[in-house]
Amino acid sequence: MKELIHKTSISVRFSEVDSLQIVWHGNYVKYFEDGREAFGKIHDLGYLQVYRQGFSMPIVNLECNYKSIIKYEDEIEIETRYVDSPAAKLIFDYRITNNTTGQLAATGRSVQVFLTKDGELQLTIPPFFEKWKQKWLKG
Amino acid sequence: MKELIHKTSISVRFSEVDSLQIVWHGNYVKYFEDGREAFGKIHDLGYLQVYRQGFSMPIVNLECNYKSIIKYEDEIEIETRYVDSPAAKLIFDYRITNNTTGQLAATGRSVQVFLTKDGELQLTIPPFFEKWKQKWLKG
Amino acid sequence: MKELIHKTSISVRFSEVDSLQIVWHGNYVKYFEDGREAFGKIHDLGYLQVYRQGFSMPIVNLECNYKSIIKYEDEIEIETRYVDSPAAKLIFDYRITNNTTGQLAATGRSVQVFLTKDGELQLTIPPFFEKWKQKWLKG
Amino acid sequence: MKELIHKTSISVRFSEVDSLQIVWHGNYVKYFEDGREAFGKIHDLGYLQVYRQGFSMPIVNLECNYKSIIKYEDEIEIETRYVDSPAAKLIFDYRITNNTTGQLAATGRSVQVFLTKDGELQLTIPPFFEKWKQKWLKG
Repeated sequence: MKELIHKTSISVRFSEVDSLQIVWHGNYVKYFEDGREAFGKIHDLGYLQVYRQGFSMPIVNLECNYKSIIKYEDEIEIETRYVDSPAAKLIFDYRITNNTTGQLAATGRSVQVFLTKDGELQLTIPPFFEKWKQKWLKG
Repeated sequence: MKELIHKTSISVRFSEVDSLQIVWHGNYVKYFEDGREAFGKIHDLGYLQVYRQGFSMPIVNLECNYKSIIKYEDEIEIETRYVDSPAAKLIFDYRITNNTTGQLAATGRSVQVFLTKDGELQLTIPPFFEKWKQKWLKG
Repeated sequence: MKELIHKTSISVRFSEVDSLQIVWHGNYVKYFEDGREAFGKIHDLGYLQVYRQGFSMPIVNLECNYKSIIKYEDEIEIETRYVDSPAAKLIFDYRITNNTTGQLAATGRSVQVFLTKDGELQLTIPPFFEKWKQKWLKG
Repeated sequence: MKELIHKTSISVRFSEVDSLQIVWHGNYVKYFEDGREAFGKIHDLGYLQVYRQGFSMPIVNLECNYKSIIKYEDEIEIETRYVDSPAAKLIFDYRITNNTTGQLAATGRSVQVFLTKDGELQLTIPPFFEKWKQKWLKG
């Protein structure tokens, strides 16, 4: 099975820095989403692409481990790694690296499920996602 | 014509304060919206209430004048005043007072138009809003 | 040992709702912070109070489990529960309840450490926090 | 006098889109700041660069005129234009263009003043800014 990893660079905004002069911890959730959406654009799995297949993918679990601080003007990079699962879930692992300091800034994981447009939880892997796995993991 | 004014109190969040230890200027736009929605709840003009009448009310003009700073733990109050207009517009004036310092923190104005659910600009005052004026301004 | 729990109510802002008509998942991190700060105000453990003791308390681990959706105009309540630890850590468990639907909306946990104003990690429990434990847990 | 204009591209985040499927109006303030900071990086006038000269530059007036909507996945560009003033003020005009639709999305203006690190309003143009004008406008 191929390993799917995408890296994307982020500019820290002035408004993302808190009164302790560091990026407010809640903004890492946005950075994870930036990484996930950047991954999705490359690998046909963006939020809108999945939506056009008839599904939304709400996050059901999110975890973030903070390793070192990020300051304004630091250049950061988000590595988003697809974690395959036999369940009807979409799992990503994240690593945020602070390229200005060279340090690992955070790691994390998100777990998403598939919801039909009627809001029903999809218990088995949707056919479009089976095809996606065929294309991207086995191809 | 009656004057319609609503006052609402706001707690400043830690995440709303920037690296200069003051509320980031962009968050005043949220406070204005808090004031507008609090006004709307009391006066039947909330975003969802208008939406159920078949309209959305996008903001077309926003202005904010910053008068004094707001810090974390300051208690602030937003005064939202309805400004009547013969045009198919919804206009509000805002005054944010910092009750901790007793100073005026900001003034501002927002102008909204009416958009049908098809996204068409409504050039005349919608009937539901004429009724609203009858009820609240002349009653 | 006494159990320390604080409950606080939150109004969902229009700007916190995403294009799927539900509160964007990242905003739950703000709600947790609202709960933590509300707890802190009652129990002398607010961000500024700790800062005046010479410490900041950066979050090193955050977890959120999403159980049901929150919509605009839903009334939500955050329960923040202090979790005692023998380590130099500050741990809180959270439960967000959607009072409009009566459903549990999310659970979560945050872990904070103590950092001196020089940015050094405090490896033992700071004296002010030992006193705090004496006062609030044994009293 | 030379005209100073900087253009920068922005990716719209999923979390910046509201329940009407369009970018929430308050986020335009962030986009203006993105433009201003991108201008500052190129022209030695970034927030941190000015701070190192002994000044902060709080915004005292902000205006935004919304012209057309921005959707998720739209590519937008912010044009930031320096507006010279004889007063001790820093003025920028903004134009946000939606490159996906080809339409003007918004125009706006921000006015900033100079504050010393003691929080005093600087009534005359600070020497560092006179030098800046010499370098960038007359050079």
